[in-house]
Amino acid sequence: MTTSVLERANAACEALTEGEDALTREVITRFADKWSLWTLSVLAQGNGPLRFSRVLERVEGVSQKSLTKTLRQLERDGLVVRKVFAEVPPRVEYEITPIGLEMLEHVEPLWTWAAKSVKRFQAARATYDQANRNA
Amino acid sequence: MTTSVLERANAACEALTEGEDALTREVITRFADKWSLWTLSVLAQGNGPLRFSRVLERVEGVSQKSLTKTLRQLERDGLVVRKVFAEVPPRVEYEITPIGLEMLEHVEPLWTWAAKSVKRFQAARATYDQANRNA
Repeated sequence: MTTSVLERANAACEALTEGEDALTREVITRFADKWSLWTLSVLAQGNGPLRFSRVLERVEGVSQKSLTKTLRQLERDGLVVRKVFAEVPPRVEYEITPIGLEMLEHVEPLWTWAAKSVKRFQAARATYDQANRNA
Repeated sequence: MTTSVLERANAACEALTEGEDALTREVITRFADKWSLWTLSVLAQGNGPLRFSRVLERVEGVSQKSLTKTLRQLERDGLVVRKVFAEVPPRVEYEITPIGLEMLEHVEPLWTWAAKSVKRFQAARATYDQANRNA
């Protein structure tokens, strides 16, 4: 099984130009930041568009500035769509896109596994650091 | 389906302390770097321990220095094991661990999907940047 998994990944990566490779890495890295995954999850759970203020409430601890930046990045990559309604004052809503949902479904298994494995990483590091302190 | 996926991810993340959360992010970020995933793939495909020089050959384009650093990080997180044999000159071999294989299996679907989706990200960015240049 491992080999076929690797063959798929290698085939997908080898087809990339240098610029595409860099963009792939950038998009993946984004999802290790503090707010992107959480913001996207909140929008997915909204089951429809949400106003900025609702997103701000649900992504606990995020500042207005960080959320603005996060939503802009997600929008730029096509993961979120921003809709402006010509009202007074203008109403702005955010909604997850189909590609955003796909992203979430691919990031989630890795995140869940990594979060569950964190004690194993800690133990490995403690062992390594101990051995290398004494070396 | 999306909701249950999110519930699993949220449950896994909420159980983390701040330090564990940071470590989870760090381990995930590692796999967006230039060499970690490739090195781990080469070791998985080796079907057994490999000498440094064999890994260097197979991870095309990596420098000796970068590969040394990458292997050290992977070893520190418990994803790779380094075995030293008391020969003259000493023989050193690297092997992927069971947790390293698990990591690979969880990272691969995300990587493959992101690599295949890169043209959609590029198109989204082009549209966004165009709209925001004219705004």
